[in-house]
Amino acid sequence: MVRAFFYPESVAVVGASSNPQKIGYQILKNILDYGYRGKVFPVNIHEDEILGLHAYRRVSDIPVPVDLVVVAVPAAVVPEVLEDAGKKGVKAVAVISSGFKEVGRADLEERLVEIARKYGFRLLGPNIFGVAYTPNRLNATFGPRDVRPGKIALISQSGALGIALMGWTQTEEIGLSSIVSVGNKADVSDEDLLDFFATDDNTRVIVEYMEAVKDGRAFMDAARRNPKPIIVIKAGRSKRGAQAASSHTGSLAGSDLVYSGAFKQVGIIRAESVRDAFVMARALAELPEPAGDNIVIITNGGGIGVLATDAFEARGLDLYSGPDLVAFKKAMPDFGSFKNPVDITGMADPVMYMDALRIAQEHENMHAIALLYCETAVCDPEELAEGIIRTYNHKKPLVVGMVGGEKTERAIARLNEAGIPAYDSPEDAVRALHALYLWKEGKKKRQMSGSMRSS
Amino acid sequence: MVRAFFYPESVAVVGASSNPQKIGYQILKNILDYGYRGKVFPVNIHEDEILGLHAYRRVSDIPVPVDLVVVAVPAAVVPEVLEDAGKKGVKAVAVISSGFKEVGRADLEERLVEIARKYGFRLLGPNIFGVAYTPNRLNATFGPRDVRPGKIALISQSGALGIALMGWTQTEEIGLSSIVSVGNKADVSDEDLLDFFATDDNTRVIVEYMEAVKDGRAFMDAARRNPKPIIVIKAGRSKRGAQAASSHTGSLAGSDLVYSGAFKQVGIIRAESVRDAFVMARALAELPEPAGDNIVIITNGGGIGVLATDAFEARGLDLYSGPDLVAFKKAMPDFGSFKNPVDITGMADPVMYMDALRIAQEHENMHAIALLYCETAVCDPEELAEGIIRTYNHKKPLVVGMVGGEKTERAIARLNEAGIPAYDSPEDAVRALHALYLWKEGKKKRQMSGSMRSS
Repeated sequence: MVRAFFYPESVAVVGASSNPQKIGYQILKNILDYGYRGKVFPVNIHEDEILGLHAYRRVSDIPVPVDLVVVAVPAAVVPEVLEDAGKKGVKAVAVISSGFKEVGRADLEERLVEIARKYGFRLLGPNIFGVAYTPNRLNATFGPRDVRPGKIALISQSGALGIALMGWTQTEEIGLSSIVSVGNKADVSDEDLLDFFATDDNTRVIVEYMEAVKDGRAFMDAARRNPKPIIVIKAGRSKRGAQAASSHTGSLAGSDLVYSGAFKQVGIIRAESVRDAFVMARALAELPEPAGDNIVIITNGGGIGVLATDAFEARGLDLYSGPDLVAFKKAMPDFGSFKNPVDITGMADPVMYMDALRIAQEHENMHAIALLYCETAVCDPEELAEGIIRTYNHKKPLVVGMVGGEKTERAIARLNEAGIPAYDSPEDAVRALHALYLWKEGKKKRQMSGSMRSS
Repeated sequence: MVRAFFYPESVAVVGASSNPQKIGYQILKNILDYGYRGKVFPVNIHEDEILGLHAYRRVSDIPVPVDLVVVAVPAAVVPEVLEDAGKKGVKAVAVISSGFKEVGRADLEERLVEIARKYGFRLLGPNIFGVAYTPNRLNATFGPRDVRPGKIALISQSGALGIALMGWTQTEEIGLSSIVSVGNKADVSDEDLLDFFATDDNTRVIVEYMEAVKDGRAFMDAARRNPKPIIVIKAGRSKRGAQAASSHTGSLAGSDLVYSGAFKQVGIIRAESVRDAFVMARALAELPEPAGDNIVIITNGGGIGVLATDAFEARGLDLYSGPDLVAFKKAMPDFGSFKNPVDITGMADPVMYMDALRIAQEHENMHAIALLYCETAVCDPEELAEGIIRTYNHKKPLVVGMVGGEKTERAIARLNEAGIPAYDSPEDAVRALHALYLWKEGKKKRQMSGSMRSS
């Protein structure tokens, strides 16, 4: 039933306004400008027309069915808005307004939930910045207008950080299927959202910024029955951080060890930072599962080859060392090294890179490829990127790490656009590939714990 | 005596060429285009004029004194070039050419050193991409032409990575005083360079990408007598990485534990990656030493406040919790929190940020400031950046972490330009501030071990 937050056929914005300073204005404007194609109804007791649309006094005045209501009015008025919407028979209400549990008004929040239960609609929030779902061109948030479409769903318990990440993912060219602000989680929970994204064809990976779960067991069950990789940035790891999180959302963060243990049990990948989470999510959104543990590094720089080797070994990952590595000899100058890391040397041009990539793709014993590049005059990075896009057959995982200047930056963007995870450091490329192995392991754990549970 | 590599009054390029494909062309072109103001002499047996300059047959034909010779001719010819340059009385020779110890020709490399000793000049390399020194507008490398001037000296044992980092520092807007490729370190050693940068007024921080030192004791002594922060990215941490490093540079990488122990003893900061090294170097290049351990976080987002708190605590750093934190109350709305992290809330505008920054600057018990920001509509990031630049008095360390879109990206660049280390994540801001504490500790260790040694 949370589906109506993502696939509404009509949206009403209560508290919509002609004043650009108001949140109700910003949400309505985003909905209209981002290209939502359902019906949109501004609701405001004092205005007759907003942004060129007829404004209604209340939701129940709208003459057609309404699926989703977004509420941006003062907290005290929210209950009566919900009563009215409930009577109208809406399916979903996102309460943007703050002034509930997070400021000690748990009672007021409880009333909202009671109204939702009474009328049978679902309630997202309160205390949120909204919800966006790119496949539907729905941006019902007061964040930036543009959200880059992609396969990663982002759930954020922090409002400010979530909005900021809307902008950040845009400049970092990270594509999202959805972004959901969960706020106080009075009704719609992490579990509800995990369940929705579990069967959502537009989502391949779920990333969540979390300070605390409400119901640990329910959350773990939802993770267990979810077939997709889940990456959690769990804030409040430290004692003082947990205190800060608690005063921030009004919920108890719980012991970090408990979280870590629980995440591991149900195959959730924990990220140390937002950046790391998206480095991993990018790879999980695009790449197939590695068939085995044999990783091959192809590099034109000895130095980044060594850095990547260190990073792999630190994560317990194996560089392949079978005899068929000798095949790479024909993809490098005489003074290259076919021992893994396969060093095709600073003289390597795009042709040698493509030869090496083809060899790694063809050999069954080689299961995953990290292609590394230092910008040189003999190998144009953008030409290399095009070559990789033409050559890569998407049958085993390939991550790319490139270090260089402006042209390299463009090459990285181009590769990501084409669905090949590319990063500006060898370490991030390694982290990305590692995520695939973490998820392979995690998936097994989910299946095991799922079957134990059902037996 | 390595000074002549950085302050030459004249430079000869042996192997200079009119053919843009040749390294000798690229080096000469960089020297001319980047704006070097000393005399420049192309040297080539076959050409009379190169890039509009008269070309000489050999260095000894040049009618005026020559300080620095850059050699880019085949390995076999290098000894006679060095003999000739030695007779001419040059001070420094950078041998770009490869084909020495790294391919098993230790004998040929030894001959170069003998010639250098005989004539009393210093030899950088062989097997290098050159040397750049921005205060002198000298770019004697075959890397990119532009190097952004700044206060960080970069020493690289990897050629490809070093060149790639020339481009990367440019797009990341990281300023360098110098970049030196050390290659096989036949004569000029890490120690020589540390000693030079120790007294170089244009350099505040030294970053080195290292696979192996040649003489551990000499290196430690040089670090000990160096008054500046040194950050080392030591590759070959892992067993397999060490093997790869050894086949790459022909030198033994040695046990990683030995390196770690040695670095700690002499107050060298070890970075996990190139990115981390420059995150830290930026802060060390710009900020004063913190007078004490009391850190204050100012944030408009609870979430990034928690993430930063976690990151500080993970590094053993203390958030301040004294009673005078109450002073922040006047820099925030009623529902803000003056407990550290000081949460001036999502309603914070640049004025509240400036008030909070001023309070943190004025209170003597507060020793270091992490200012965090999530992009919001009520606080324009570029306006905030200008406000910070106007308000910050540079008396205690300030790092800035900002998450957001394009405007935030510009704000970060603007702050860095103005000498205020700014990053696009709370974690990097924490890492940067941590570096100051690591260096405070490291400096003490150097002084202690220095005095023990001299006693």
